[in-house]
Amino acid sequence: MDPDAVAKAFVEHYYSTFDTNLATLANLYRESSMLTFEGQKIQGSSNIVAKLTSLPFQQCKHSITTVDCQPSGPSGGMLVFVSGNLQLAGEQHALKFSQMFHLMPTPQSSFYVLNDIFRLNYA
Amino acid sequence: MDPDAVAKAFVEHYYSTFDTNLATLANLYRESSMLTFEGQKIQGSSNIVAKLTSLPFQQCKHSITTVDCQPSGPSGGMLVFVSGNLQLAGEQHALKFSQMFHLMPTPQSSFYVLNDIFRLNYA
Repeated sequence: MDPDAVAKAFVEHYYSTFDTNLATLANLYRESSMLTFEGQKIQGSSNIVAKLTSLPFQQCKHSITTVDCQPSGPSGGMLVFVSGNLQLAGEQHALKFSQMFHLMPTPQSSFYVLNDIFRLNYA
Repeated sequence: MDPDAVAKAFVEHYYSTFDTNLATLANLYRESSMLTFEGQKIQGSSNIVAKLTSLPFQQCKHSITTVDCQPSGPSGGMLVFVSGNLQLAGEQHALKFSQMFHLMPTPQSSFYVLNDIFRLNYA
């Protein structure tokens, strides 16, 4: 399958899950997975989802602006770089964000997230 | 050495080289290196530097806002995620950018850039 199509499908799945059923994002991470969220380092699927569910908003909606991807080397991994807007419930203006994922293949022809780095681009 | 310190040293070296002696950036890339620049895919050290030197400005200055890093897996690679501002000569306002690098170790205890993805965060 075309890597760009895989990256786009992953990104759509990731953010629609984030916006509608955040707890099930845990399925995309493993115990070795790392998240750096606005500079804070978190490791492991359950810790990562605990961090994301603790964020101070009731509801959010991600809108994707760009998705870029590259193979990360002989491991079969894939780097996915996203920019977009994040609308929080009750806020007038959307926030801009950038996020990168390092996806690693699973034996089931799927991917999990090994690396995840998220930053808001403050205006 | 502390990975965060390595990442910060790399980023300072990269952008100071970019801003003062762009042609020598070729030393940080190899023939396998990939750059995605505003969605355009380029491969190989000489092609990457040819692209960067063809950009339509005479002089620029990068200012770094954030640097995040994570190990990319058992290969000894390192993911570096940067946000910052780019001031072009003759322009009133700086541009915001995000960029990610995947650094791979060399036998000389140094790193080269295997993956590089660059995006401007349009206001």
